[in-house]
Amino acid sequence: MTMLVTGWVAIDDIETPFGAVTNSLGGSATCAALAGSLFTPVRLVAAVGEDFPDELRAKLVRPGIDISGLVTVAGSKTSRWGARYHYDMNNRDTWYPEMGISVEWKPTLTAEMAASCTTACIAAGHPVDQRNLIQSLVSPRATMVDTIKLFIDEALDDLRETMRHADFVTVNESEAREIAGMPSIARAARFLADSGPKGVIVKLGEYGAAFASKDDYFIAPGYPLENVIDPTGAGDAFAGGFMGYLDTVAEITPAEIRQAIIYGSTTASFAVEGFGPSRLLTLRREEVEARYREFRMLTHFEVRE
Amino acid sequence: MTMLVTGWVAIDDIETPFGAVTNSLGGSATCAALAGSLFTPVRLVAAVGEDFPDELRAKLVRPGIDISGLVTVAGSKTSRWGARYHYDMNNRDTWYPEMGISVEWKPTLTAEMAASCTTACIAAGHPVDQRNLIQSLVSPRATMVDTIKLFIDEALDDLRETMRHADFVTVNESEAREIAGMPSIARAARFLADSGPKGVIVKLGEYGAAFASKDDYFIAPGYPLENVIDPTGAGDAFAGGFMGYLDTVAEITPAEIRQAIIYGSTTASFAVEGFGPSRLLTLRREEVEARYREFRMLTHFEVRE
Repeated sequence: MTMLVTGWVAIDDIETPFGAVTNSLGGSATCAALAGSLFTPVRLVAAVGEDFPDELRAKLVRPGIDISGLVTVAGSKTSRWGARYHYDMNNRDTWYPEMGISVEWKPTLTAEMAASCTTACIAAGHPVDQRNLIQSLVSPRATMVDTIKLFIDEALDDLRETMRHADFVTVNESEAREIAGMPSIARAARFLADSGPKGVIVKLGEYGAAFASKDDYFIAPGYPLENVIDPTGAGDAFAGGFMGYLDTVAEITPAEIRQAIIYGSTTASFAVEGFGPSRLLTLRREEVEARYREFRMLTHFEVRE
Repeated sequence: MTMLVTGWVAIDDIETPFGAVTNSLGGSATCAALAGSLFTPVRLVAAVGEDFPDELRAKLVRPGIDISGLVTVAGSKTSRWGARYHYDMNNRDTWYPEMGISVEWKPTLTAEMAASCTTACIAAGHPVDQRNLIQSLVSPRATMVDTIKLFIDEALDDLRETMRHADFVTVNESEAREIAGMPSIARAARFLADSGPKGVIVKLGEYGAAFASKDDYFIAPGYPLENVIDPTGAGDAFAGGFMGYLDTVAEITPAEIRQAIIYGSTTASFAVEGFGPSRLLTLRREEVEARYREFRMLTHFEVRE
């Protein structure tokens, strides 16, 4: 069992009503790798520039993550991202992405990596690059792609094609509506699941997540957090936890997919308790398991026969 | 078992992207009474003006609803409400409420009614009137009050006092944040539950509902509706289904409260499938039970020991 994680490793500046961080470790692949490594060995494939600080790299040097695929590209700059969140946390101003190396660089796998990765968690990137990664894997058990509005706006046909090659697709609510062209989340999720991947996860932020496949529909609640510090990376922490758990199961059944969604919701709920991936850096599997059981307590109700 | 339902019986004009109705039966008490009557006998206490059409009154003449408490006030006009919903259904323009008789009229109970009603579902109204109703009940098993932004803005101290007298309070998300003065739904719900009623239900629209009491926290998902026709009255249908079910249970336990929330979510999910209360007028208990079981299918996941 080994999970490939690709996406951005970045330097972030974030401000929320509860504080601010600058020149902080960030990026989609960072959050997904940290979350996934709670469940299964992770191989991180990403690029940074010559300016990527050693102290940020040091945070990724962990027993569960193989960073031999983290490439430093000479003459390039690390991608940077800055955002300010407002009081209700559902709105943010993105100050800038400084695109940097993560945009130009095409992730590729060595033959050894392509043969050994059993699952792949592919964060937002150009859909053609995502598809190439999926196709380069020798015998993947499950693959997942995430996306962002940029690619829906600029590469929708490629994205739709990539969705047909992936097992799972994660989108947020507005993306689901936009790709499907339908106002109902349920209808959009079912439409997307019918038109390509095995399963579509619609991330609903603080309200949880909905999952649709051809045969199943599942709703996971949002964990009732009292102190959300920074929502950055929650979706990536979800993706990493979801695929990381799936990498460990004997068989990928509808019941296991539901459990994976709760594990993803759990890792995401921890992620937002600190700035960027800071909470994920200290998170332990026992904490994940305890909150998983809490999710059950939060949602259980009796059905009379 | 008998449930008192008070609130507005009104005449509505509603426009959504899917159509429009004019001079249609509406009002909070109408929706709550129809939903509640699927579970338990309802006594409706409300006022209309001399202009209230016989054909609207006829819709309320049903085996499960006693409308002897529906008063026609001479020289008065029925309350009217008009709204236009936008494409995403979470936003609406309220054209007008024509306040009418429902605003001035103070609901009172006959001694027989005060003695015989075992539960009370008290829709939005002035908190002092709501409190008077609760206090006039001889031996209520459970009471519930709903509110609207108007009373949070203009009678917050009275509302807080009323919340201490009610067993259950329903609020929507922004109301919960506003009354508690806290941005987190979970924190606001727990704060409100600690400061007065036995339980607080935060209605989350299409995302479902959250319930907080001193000892419990429960999250019910939104039913994944593909065709929402008109959200008007969903909260009232929730309240009616919730209290209507609770009126029938042997003992009001945390487990029964959770079931009541799912029944409330179920009746609300049907309500939005038609304009105003139209779907509730044809709804059968078997349909409610089938969807209740679907809620379980939608949310169930395994927990390994």
